[in-house]
Amino acid sequence: MLLPWTDIEVPERVEAAYYDGLGSPPGDLADVEFYVLPYDRGPEPPKLIKELPSLRVVQSLSAGVEALVPLLPAGVRLANGRGLHDLSVAEHALALIHAAQRDLPRWFAQQARGSWVREHTRSLADSRVLLVGYGSIGQAIERQLVAAEAVVTRVASRPRPDEGIHGVGELAALLPQADIVVLVLPDTPATRGLIGAEQLAALPDDALLVNVGRGTAVDTGALLAETRTGRLRAGLDVVDPEPLPADHPLWTVPGVVITPHIAGGSASFYPRAKKLAAEQVRRYVRGEELLNVVAP
Amino acid sequence: MLLPWTDIEVPERVEAAYYDGLGSPPGDLADVEFYVLPYDRGPEPPKLIKELPSLRVVQSLSAGVEALVPLLPAGVRLANGRGLHDLSVAEHALALIHAAQRDLPRWFAQQARGSWVREHTRSLADSRVLLVGYGSIGQAIERQLVAAEAVVTRVASRPRPDEGIHGVGELAALLPQADIVVLVLPDTPATRGLIGAEQLAALPDDALLVNVGRGTAVDTGALLAETRTGRLRAGLDVVDPEPLPADHPLWTVPGVVITPHIAGGSASFYPRAKKLAAEQVRRYVRGEELLNVVAP
Repeated sequence: MLLPWTDIEVPERVEAAYYDGLGSPPGDLADVEFYVLPYDRGPEPPKLIKELPSLRVVQSLSAGVEALVPLLPAGVRLANGRGLHDLSVAEHALALIHAAQRDLPRWFAQQARGSWVREHTRSLADSRVLLVGYGSIGQAIERQLVAAEAVVTRVASRPRPDEGIHGVGELAALLPQADIVVLVLPDTPATRGLIGAEQLAALPDDALLVNVGRGTAVDTGALLAETRTGRLRAGLDVVDPEPLPADHPLWTVPGVVITPHIAGGSASFYPRAKKLAAEQVRRYVRGEELLNVVAP
Repeated sequence: MLLPWTDIEVPERVEAAYYDGLGSPPGDLADVEFYVLPYDRGPEPPKLIKELPSLRVVQSLSAGVEALVPLLPAGVRLANGRGLHDLSVAEHALALIHAAQRDLPRWFAQQARGSWVREHTRSLADSRVLLVGYGSIGQAIERQLVAAEAVVTRVASRPRPDEGIHGVGELAALLPQADIVVLVLPDTPATRGLIGAEQLAALPDDALLVNVGRGTAVDTGALLAETRTGRLRAGLDVVDPEPLPADHPLWTVPGVVITPHIAGGSASFYPRAKKLAAEQVRRYVRGEELLNVVAP
């Protein structure tokens, strides 16, 4: 076993070595059959895959593993980290919504000046939220929105009328009734540029666009144009391009809040990741079927 | 009727005049029997109570009306705005918690510099939250915390073991297990200074204290001492004193987020307030019992 954290429970008599993706990997890796990749540590940890002669399983802690598939030697299985980040991403979507609706940047700026000036704000309660992307993250966001008494309309790539889910084809009709649009979409040919000038123009004045999926779903130039005038607002954890260049005009638009693609990486990820790693190791040792196998 | 907003529905044949608490009140107020006080407009609107010779009912849109009672002429009833702010306050508590757990001040500061530097943050999910104050606001906060998969422990002035509610007398035993403490307490002799040096010292390192009740529940000097060292963090919508003086050292402590007592005044308040005002006017006109009567 090659594991990223020392506090993953492994069965008795299983030998474990540790590599956190920051320092150097341990010296003797000839016997490693099961490699749990360090999370979000750049390109070095995946390179190690090719240097493990006994390797049978690679366990990634990310949901998106497209970049790993070409690195797999023949016969090595790959399992992903589907679901580990759901709650972290959902929570960050709520953080961005609250920040925008309750004017947090304004209060923090006042705090820096020691200024106690009061004014009423927008709220999330009663807001009409168009939730675009209704997988496990979207559903976690919905539970929190409903608890806050927002009114949620569900949109997914395909309509599922029996579950009250609209298809993206209906966006044109839905956007004019949205106070807040939350995007939770993967990067696919179908989602790229889904929200362009026409879609943004369909939103009512003062609407808020939140993106915690992939930046490519939104036409950045069109969003810049609609937020610069103050007509629309935005809360973005993902943008196109990433990283956003230091001199990009979107950084300084009032009414736009940007975080650097950190929605998935919060504390709630770790216990879930360690639990999955322990479960997978246990299954491997007992010869049971692994969870989340995505390749081959 | 003297009403603060022109879009409150009043029954046919009822004469209404309007006073929003900002400009001057209308000239002829001799016939006003029912006065809905403008919300959060300072000391002028209450003064008018004494100048309405036909007055029978004062409807406040605040929950706390202690200051109005001494102004009531004999025989004039007072109704309060209990519940109108619950959702707004609850939502702001969540905004402060998310801001602190997900490092929003850090990202906003980076945004101002055009800086894309990523780092993992704390999360709300899995956090152990001690919710002190379990009235309607506390319950609204709890629903949102539970949806975010935090683990809530309920505390109220008196224990109610059958509802899983601890009494404030048990705080000493509960504080060491809290990652986040949320205070939703009114200002009473029993709550003043409830959280002092001893209680703060009982919290684990890095714990977050959130206050959306009244500032007097916390010993500001003790909180300053524990946050200045970086041992504790805070998210405060209320402080003691208010307004916090411009040169108060609490403003600039890293890890302390302050908003100027604006939790209750967000957009979700208005439809609720207008609905209550319309209902009370309707009841008054028909001779029915009023809601929320608190005096005499």
